[in-house]
Amino acid sequence: MTVNVLFAGGADRWPQYEEPLRAALDEAGVTARLAQDIPPDQVDYIVYSPGSWLQDFTPYTRARAVLNLWAGVENIVDNPTLHLPLARMVDEGLTQGMVEWVTGHVLRHHLGLDTHVLHQDGVWRNDQVPPLAHDRPVTILGLGALGRACGAALAALGFPVTGWSRTPRDIARLTCRHGADGLRGALETGRIVVLLLPRTAETENIIDAETLALMPHGAVIVNPGRGPLVDDDALLAALDTGQIGHATLDVFREEPLPPEHPFWAHPQVTVTPHIASETRPASAARVIAENVRRGEAGEALLHLVDRDRGY
Amino acid sequence: MTVNVLFAGGADRWPQYEEPLRAALDEAGVTARLAQDIPPDQVDYIVYSPGSWLQDFTPYTRARAVLNLWAGVENIVDNPTLHLPLARMVDEGLTQGMVEWVTGHVLRHHLGLDTHVLHQDGVWRNDQVPPLAHDRPVTILGLGALGRACGAALAALGFPVTGWSRTPRDIARLTCRHGADGLRGALETGRIVVLLLPRTAETENIIDAETLALMPHGAVIVNPGRGPLVDDDALLAALDTGQIGHATLDVFREEPLPPEHPFWAHPQVTVTPHIASETRPASAARVIAENVRRGEAGEALLHLVDRDRGY
Repeated sequence: MTVNVLFAGGADRWPQYEEPLRAALDEAGVTARLAQDIPPDQVDYIVYSPGSWLQDFTPYTRARAVLNLWAGVENIVDNPTLHLPLARMVDEGLTQGMVEWVTGHVLRHHLGLDTHVLHQDGVWRNDQVPPLAHDRPVTILGLGALGRACGAALAALGFPVTGWSRTPRDIARLTCRHGADGLRGALETGRIVVLLLPRTAETENIIDAETLALMPHGAVIVNPGRGPLVDDDALLAALDTGQIGHATLDVFREEPLPPEHPFWAHPQVTVTPHIASETRPASAARVIAENVRRGEAGEALLHLVDRDRGY
Repeated sequence: MTVNVLFAGGADRWPQYEEPLRAALDEAGVTARLAQDIPPDQVDYIVYSPGSWLQDFTPYTRARAVLNLWAGVENIVDNPTLHLPLARMVDEGLTQGMVEWVTGHVLRHHLGLDTHVLHQDGVWRNDQVPPLAHDRPVTILGLGALGRACGAALAALGFPVTGWSRTPRDIARLTCRHGADGLRGALETGRIVVLLLPRTAETENIIDAETLALMPHGAVIVNPGRGPLVDDDALLAALDTGQIGHATLDVFREEPLPPEHPFWAHPQVTVTPHIASETRPASAARVIAENVRRGEAGEALLHLVDRDRGY
């Protein structure tokens, strides 16, 4: 039997999601008609995202669930016309993507890949053998789901990983530090320092002139966390003296980072455009498809929103 | 008692190895005199590498073993003056270094890092989100110690890894294929193909026009194995048509790669100067020191060469 799946995730997202959703439904063994224009009374499942044209759920008399493409449901959970079960997105792809991005950039700095990527000039530069990961301590500030996952991946590759968080943690294979004293120790050992803290009043400008001076000379900063964790001017000054050897920054106080910002032109800064961690169409599509499969099989849906709690 | 350790590894390697060897002997609890010029009849252990000035072992009447700095012993094993036990190098640093290099370059290609490293021009290029590792199949040709270790590291990061070898293998987390038929299947699925085969008559030019055509359009080749595995002209032709999206090559038929070789100038080729895997002074020195310690303690030496087998 064909299941009618309405894509109400926004016309601009349709090109990104159409193919992954078709593939995922197919893989899940669901025979589906997936479209943006299905008559409301024929729709079985609604794929939704904030900003959708769909605001009145009343005509969807036969629909069994609304499957949100985003983790946040604040734009739909209070819709008075919605009486259907609502599932939010829990995209393992987001954590996995962060692990891949962080591991890739840590290895890039560790191995000195840029030397070769930037200088394909016929000069055989084989005099710089990097130390092994074992001799390159990495420090991660922030031990939430992302920091822990990145720490585990880097430790598995052989890096000695120190993790720092506000409150005490105990995580296998990581040296965990916490609080103000712990921060000093974590920064003093980190040859590569990865920022994965949330943005709070306490973490704003946590990387400033004072903390930059604690790191080993030539340390590398990798920031896929939040732009305001870093005092931009202090970082630029530390890059100019060589105290910081390189900074790879994915997040900024203003995004897109304005073309005139000195980060773009600085030879020891790599700007990446807030791509370290995103909901991925392929993995998000698998979550949607799995929920359609479950709905059709009479099984409980994944990641159902508790309307009272609001998430 | 002081043990006399002669460094006959070549004067050009002495600056790299002197300090690590002293540190490792010290750590192993061996009181040693380490030098390049010890009278032959006082020498207890000989640290050796191919190309050494030492070719006649006859005067080393008191020596207990020759400890090779290299894995390969083809330049010494047939020396008719050598009747001492000969140990080859099994450097866990070499395998670990290869895992780091391969993982770093696979992630570099997977994440498209070069786009950002090469274009810090103020343009916010956030329209290219790479798939997750889960959706980027990697194929490794060669399942020796290096291929297996690289495969395990890539599988742990989430890549689906297919490994190919001449004879059947069964390795956890890897899809193993073998023989001529298996090669076709391994190449057809590999979006990134890593070459870690030994050089033999059978593997020479294994990457040629025919096998390049089997790979998915735009596949990436990473060769830290042996230069002659690749037919250079066929690879250049496949790069020009886009059949191969990029090649990162660490080994070549002639090294250093001559400045006029077209690989240097090709925008879809990254040349690295045979650095993927080297004996690392620090870890190699620990192996040498451990064997000196064992010799002095009357214990069996590690990695002794079987003269009949030749390795």
